[in-house]
Amino acid sequence: MSKLITVAQAAKELKKADNILILTHAYPDGDTLGSGYALCRALHKMGKSARVECSDIIPDKYRFMFEDMGPAEDFEPEYLCAVDVADSLLLGDKLKTYAESVDLCIDHHGSNTRYAKKLVLIPEYSAAAMIIAEIINALGVKIDSGIAACIYTGIATDTGCFKYSNTTSYAMRMAADMLDYGINSEMINRTMFDIKSRARIELERMALESMRFFLNDRCAIMLITHEMIEKSGAGEEDLEGLAPIPRQIEGVHVGVTMRERQDGTYKVSIRTDNRADASSICSILGGGGHVRAAGCTVGGPAERAVKTIVEAVRSVID
Amino acid sequence: MSKLITVAQAAKELKKADNILILTHAYPDGDTLGSGYALCRALHKMGKSARVECSDIIPDKYRFMFEDMGPAEDFEPEYLCAVDVADSLLLGDKLKTYAESVDLCIDHHGSNTRYAKKLVLIPEYSAAAMIIAEIINALGVKIDSGIAACIYTGIATDTGCFKYSNTTSYAMRMAADMLDYGINSEMINRTMFDIKSRARIELERMALESMRFFLNDRCAIMLITHEMIEKSGAGEEDLEGLAPIPRQIEGVHVGVTMRERQDGTYKVSIRTDNRADASSICSILGGGGHVRAAGCTVGGPAERAVKTIVEAVRSVID
Repeated sequence: MSKLITVAQAAKELKKADNILILTHAYPDGDTLGSGYALCRALHKMGKSARVECSDIIPDKYRFMFEDMGPAEDFEPEYLCAVDVADSLLLGDKLKTYAESVDLCIDHHGSNTRYAKKLVLIPEYSAAAMIIAEIINALGVKIDSGIAACIYTGIATDTGCFKYSNTTSYAMRMAADMLDYGINSEMINRTMFDIKSRARIELERMALESMRFFLNDRCAIMLITHEMIEKSGAGEEDLEGLAPIPRQIEGVHVGVTMRERQDGTYKVSIRTDNRADASSICSILGGGGHVRAAGCTVGGPAERAVKTIVEAVRSVID
Repeated sequence: MSKLITVAQAAKELKKADNILILTHAYPDGDTLGSGYALCRALHKMGKSARVECSDIIPDKYRFMFEDMGPAEDFEPEYLCAVDVADSLLLGDKLKTYAESVDLCIDHHGSNTRYAKKLVLIPEYSAAAMIIAEIINALGVKIDSGIAACIYTGIATDTGCFKYSNTTSYAMRMAADMLDYGINSEMINRTMFDIKSRARIELERMALESMRFFLNDRCAIMLITHEMIEKSGAGEEDLEGLAPIPRQIEGVHVGVTMRERQDGTYKVSIRTDNRADASSICSILGGGGHVRAAGCTVGGPAERAVKTIVEAVRSVID
């Protein structure tokens, strides 16, 4: 069970520490990496040794966070700090050896499992990077454009570019502060949100083609098969962010994405607007989740799965 | 030639006026409507008569701006105020009768043609709605959630949800202020940026299918034909915002969208990243525009047009 500490106390801890290994979560995103590299850059400015590690390969689009930093420093870690890692299981394969010995965790997930010795947890914040910015200020390090770009990316990615309901006015003001450090936010946003691989574009096209409408067009179901993934050449990273698509269609209250699994079952993601409860639908199907976003597994073949899903949706929205 | 006045002077003008007709531009967008309804709501709070007019039908997605306001007030206009209207021609057919008699124009387009008697022009602002917010403050009217939703929408839509390079830190801070008035920014952003008609989805799918790559995949060309528009059932509003798609593909420096015209020519929109100059390419083809976004017209048939465009792109990027 972690000891909960404040931003000021975390800064005190880090001031004393050296040879700091910063741990990010597997399948890294903009917030864990932005938090990690912002903190690492700040620690370097204090003359400390620090490096960021991740169990998975860091996608190319995050390269701007560290490409000017030179090779990662080589040292025997003395202090372990996890950023945006809600559960030690999320450290992934390569970093799981550190799971029991994390000194400090800095996180904004209310679901944090308190695996670290000490924990700064602010669930009201839209991104872990916002806590990091406060810690950097408490460390007395002057934020520069390199740090600002990392903090901005963490906030922008975790709020869907300030679009989601978790976007607070404080998050926007902090992002505004980062703009004032002279970052190229347009490049960051284009890289994070707009650029898609050709495989992804092709997969989207095929997925749109598969879209079917039910219940007076209030329910849209999109199917993603092995064959589509293979044909398009899509990799795991190309499969992210498909689930919201069906619900973005005018008049659709319940958007369903079905992804074929190796064992012939379907991984089902359901997204709803304010007129339907996704978690109720998924709980009928043996799954669960949140009111607007939930998931479950449904057995094949596809036609039977579609029927099962439509019946569950009907029972909730009618 | 307009007399340039300050925000404080504009507030003084409006304080004296009554029966105020607020004019928005044709093909209305979130900034002209957000500016118009924010100002109208503020004037109503002062006990003045005011209404917003537009030459075109206001798309349903902007309904939240005025649906709680009751029917538009009926009065003989005594004072004409244009918002976000850079040129009196943009008032459109229905409102062109007012072109010569606009008392006050509130705008952020550097290209404003100064058709109004008096003009508040702040080209540094990301949206006209930002000037409106300052005027409302200068009027001494307390901003409420209804006004805040309009101002927020103006800023969000003109900055592509804070994504474009015109997003200043002041714009983000003002949007943050609007969040603090208790608006539902998630609903606004979903409505403005995510919801697409079925016809639009179908048109996008066909357009993606038409995508071809040239010059070692650095140039992507997407074709939109009459047939596609007809088959998909897309209306004029569904054709907006297609031009950025080809350039969003990884590795593409020059993204081209060709839209078939009635006379058999093609309306060509070119979008580039920082490695190519769109205006140079278009000027070869007899058009023009900005460094990252430009346009021109190329004669058909399609195959010859594609060849012509690819040659122009080659000469600029090689």
